[in-house]
Amino acid sequence: MAFLKHIWNRWQNLLHDEKLKHKIYVIIFESDTPMGKLFDVALIGFIVLSILVVVAESIKSWDAVIGPYLRVSEYVFTFFFTLEYVLRLYCSPKPRKYALSFFGIVDLLATLPLYIGWLFGTARYLLVIRTFRLIRVFRIFKLFNYLNEGNFLLRSLVFSSRKIIVFFLFVLILVTSIGTLMYMIEGQRPGTSFNNIPNSIYWAIVTMTTVGYGDITPETPLGRFLSAIVMLLGYTIIAVPTGIVSASMIQEHRRRVALKCPHCGKDGHEDGAAYCKYCGGKLVN
Amino acid sequence: MAFLKHIWNRWQNLLHDEKLKHKIYVIIFESDTPMGKLFDVALIGFIVLSILVVVAESIKSWDAVIGPYLRVSEYVFTFFFTLEYVLRLYCSPKPRKYALSFFGIVDLLATLPLYIGWLFGTARYLLVIRTFRLIRVFRIFKLFNYLNEGNFLLRSLVFSSRKIIVFFLFVLILVTSIGTLMYMIEGQRPGTSFNNIPNSIYWAIVTMTTVGYGDITPETPLGRFLSAIVMLLGYTIIAVPTGIVSASMIQEHRRRVALKCPHCGKDGHEDGAAYCKYCGGKLVN
Amino acid sequence: MAFLKHIWNRWQNLLHDEKLKHKIYVIIFESDTPMGKLFDVALIGFIVLSILVVVAESIKSWDAVIGPYLRVSEYVFTFFFTLEYVLRLYCSPKPRKYALSFFGIVDLLATLPLYIGWLFGTARYLLVIRTFRLIRVFRIFKLFNYLNEGNFLLRSLVFSSRKIIVFFLFVLILVTSIGTLMYMIEGQRPGTSFNNIPNSIYWAIVTMTTVGYGDITPETPLGRFLSAIVMLLGYTIIAVPTGIVSASMIQEHRRRVALKCPHCGKDGHEDGAAYCKYCGGKLVN
Amino acid sequence: MAFLKHIWNRWQNLLHDEKLKHKIYVIIFESDTPMGKLFDVALIGFIVLSILVVVAESIKSWDAVIGPYLRVSEYVFTFFFTLEYVLRLYCSPKPRKYALSFFGIVDLLATLPLYIGWLFGTARYLLVIRTFRLIRVFRIFKLFNYLNEGNFLLRSLVFSSRKIIVFFLFVLILVTSIGTLMYMIEGQRPGTSFNNIPNSIYWAIVTMTTVGYGDITPETPLGRFLSAIVMLLGYTIIAVPTGIVSASMIQEHRRRVALKCPHCGKDGHEDGAAYCKYCGGKLVN
Repeated sequence: MAFLKHIWNRWQNLLHDEKLKHKIYVIIFESDTPMGKLFDVALIGFIVLSILVVVAESIKSWDAVIGPYLRVSEYVFTFFFTLEYVLRLYCSPKPRKYALSFFGIVDLLATLPLYIGWLFGTARYLLVIRTFRLIRVFRIFKLFNYLNEGNFLLRSLVFSSRKIIVFFLFVLILVTSIGTLMYMIEGQRPGTSFNNIPNSIYWAIVTMTTVGYGDITPETPLGRFLSAIVMLLGYTIIAVPTGIVSASMIQEHRRRVALKCPHCGKDGHEDGAAYCKYCGGKLVN
Repeated sequence: MAFLKHIWNRWQNLLHDEKLKHKIYVIIFESDTPMGKLFDVALIGFIVLSILVVVAESIKSWDAVIGPYLRVSEYVFTFFFTLEYVLRLYCSPKPRKYALSFFGIVDLLATLPLYIGWLFGTARYLLVIRTFRLIRVFRIFKLFNYLNEGNFLLRSLVFSSRKIIVFFLFVLILVTSIGTLMYMIEGQRPGTSFNNIPNSIYWAIVTMTTVGYGDITPETPLGRFLSAIVMLLGYTIIAVPTGIVSASMIQEHRRRVALKCPHCGKDGHEDGAAYCKYCGGKLVN
Repeated sequence: MAFLKHIWNRWQNLLHDEKLKHKIYVIIFESDTPMGKLFDVALIGFIVLSILVVVAESIKSWDAVIGPYLRVSEYVFTFFFTLEYVLRLYCSPKPRKYALSFFGIVDLLATLPLYIGWLFGTARYLLVIRTFRLIRVFRIFKLFNYLNEGNFLLRSLVFSSRKIIVFFLFVLILVTSIGTLMYMIEGQRPGTSFNNIPNSIYWAIVTMTTVGYGDITPETPLGRFLSAIVMLLGYTIIAVPTGIVSASMIQEHRRRVALKCPHCGKDGHEDGAAYCKYCGGKLVN
Repeated sequence: MAFLKHIWNRWQNLLHDEKLKHKIYVIIFESDTPMGKLFDVALIGFIVLSILVVVAESIKSWDAVIGPYLRVSEYVFTFFFTLEYVLRLYCSPKPRKYALSFFGIVDLLATLPLYIGWLFGTARYLLVIRTFRLIRVFRIFKLFNYLNEGNFLLRSLVFSSRKIIVFFLFVLILVTSIGTLMYMIEGQRPGTSFNNIPNSIYWAIVTMTTVGYGDITPETPLGRFLSAIVMLLGYTIIAVPTGIVSASMIQEHRRRVALKCPHCGKDGHEDGAAYCKYCGGKLVN
């Protein structure tokens, strides 16, 4: 009994050992110390490897040969990622906030596929489980976090997001109209691929975005005439998002140069600078 | 007789009841009051639903099962849209101006397909009627009206419209020349898809806009050489509309920032602001 | 004899009748008078019609029915264009300069196809002649001349032409290398479309420009991997001409605004203005 | 013996004849003298010719007829390029630096294919050797060196390289996720081309970059819906590299105009100027 109490106390101490928490926090969440850097690089390596395992499993000829090894490494990765998730929860000063953040949810999802396989896991469900495990791929999104420059691109896109949404709505209206029109023109021909409006809208999107698979193509003169107009339209419309993003990038660029240091109040820092060049303080974007 | 006269008077009163008209006007045409907002959201929902019905009817396997329900809902939508159109005419201060405006015509066209079906409607004409009803899809254009930000994109495009028209004319000349040249090169080969100039022009547009379906492709060495040149040309030419739109967006952006408030005369408002930040007055774009 | 001399004198008078020459010059070369405008519109109409005739002749089913009418109208157009060319030579103050200018050569070429048909014209050569007549299509380039705004686009492209040429050279080197690499990877597979280096280079251009016909596609894993890299490369490289043209358009725009009136010396004219807003004098671009 | 010593001395003199070295250096490395210009033009001609020989050899029908001539010219080109490489090493003031520079390595690689053929050369290895010789194509990269304007494009790309790398990483994450998702949706259908994740990722790249071969296309409604979203996404994302490059080009342009002459210290030179317009000194970019 005293022994159990002893363990309980050790456990409680561990749970509230702020010094240890901070140590682990520095290693896991930050990357300024050598240990923190090593952990981040190892984590990225593990993420990439676990994705490669999923990819390799999907190739039938490989899976026939090295399938068992892939399955075992899958267990190892899941164990490691689960441990990492628990440690992040443990050492985070605000565990709830982390758990509900974007990367908190992604980290959790990255560990789930195998466990779901155990819960619902008879032999014939294995295939479904495997596809669930593919969600793991989203863990690669973490990679993005490690790069400083990505912020610029994200802010530029966020800044122009409202304009882009309106643009997309307009494009949706356009492709719906064009798809319907094309269905009216080509839909009555026997054996046509424009056999219903959703397929015609799919064709309109394939054409407007200049992807042009060629799996659905007009064959009547009128249909070809209309699709030529759609292409020339798409040619101009493709210029709109480019214009939006270019303009907001130039603006974001100016904002960065005009950024005031929160420590010494001076501006004029280089684009992409992380520290003030006058006082060395960290800049807040 | 007195009863009929009574009804006539009530009708006359209704027709000139400016207070009621204004009440309905606020609900239908504006969206600042809770009722007006509710009406707008319901209308958008109805428009989307009526389009989904048209789309669903075009899918043969769905139409076989739920066809009758789709037909009934079609009657409901047409009744609602007709009522809405009559009310808009009734409460509008300038009914003629509304009827001749872009949305007045679209609103009218949205109600017509079913009625046209009744006029010319024997069984074998039903198919034609159904395609006519597809015009209803254009009602979705109304959606665009409800969005504030769309103005910016429209003005940018209108501002650069003249340059874009000249550009399109130039592209038309180019694709006509290239299409004819390609017909001269590939048109004599038996079984070729370049069997006449319109098809060759269609190919030139498909290539220049980088859509590239692949339904018509060159097969002679000379034809491939020419089409490689056309692609590299299109690669550069695609930069022209982008440049035009980008330039006019930067300009429209500056114009917005320099916009003077019509109430207090101050400028420097944020891009996309709807109200003056100094006096709270509504800004006129 | 006196009669012939009389005709000769009349002819000589006509040839040196500067007043008549100027009258015709104003009609044919300028478009400020009502007659000049009418002539230009009629000429454009004739050019478009003559091109439509060539296009119609290429459609076999049409040619079988209205072929003779097309042939006759061909004679009419050739007569009209020959007359127009002779009149232009006659009334031009510097006939030699006109004859050697771009449009002088195009005007001459527009009249030639039928005459070449007469010179070399036995029945079996008719087909060749018809393709020669297709050169007529180039006459449509004249259309471009009539538009004021086109100047802006042309200047922007000319300004950035040197950069674009270097860019194209770089692209040529790239597609040659990539095409050869792809031939090494996919060329040994039996039945492949990468059967020689020119075809592989054609594939590289089709891919880099994002046209993507799909007539030649990689099928080995390594080939698909390489082509994925080529696509992502092309994705970035497509940004280069866009950037070049955008930058030179912004510059050309600034130049236009800063344009000095040659009459009163003031600047600040709107983009695209043809006349000075201070003194009304014509601006020289 | 005295004779051999005499040759040895002559050889030593030659190896240290700085005057001769400089003469050759001016011809081979520089292009300011008439001889230097002639050498450069001849070299470019030889490079293009040697590439054309490789291309011609890959066309089977040509190789059957003029194959022996192509093989002989191959010997001539290899001899010339070897001589050129040795001379460059000989006359270069820092031979080691040249040998390790980009063009030093390219020059060496350009001479190797034939020699490798001699070393490992029995009849049945000939085919492999021929593909090795294709490396020669990379010599064409030298062409790029001769153009002044290319610097601008390169600097613009280098300046924006960090942002482009982040963008590419983001695109890689996106196509991996989308490819996996698509494999989950379409991968179970019999006879599908989405038969493993690498192929699905290849499809995602083909679609996102708007290349759209059409060799792998979705066929289920859900698959088509997802790919429509991917296309619209790619439509916006293609705007990002364009925005990055445009912004850095405008910046590089400003930097060039603000460039200070190293001789007289004045700025304001035209974009692309190689010499100071005030003192005539060479500008350093």
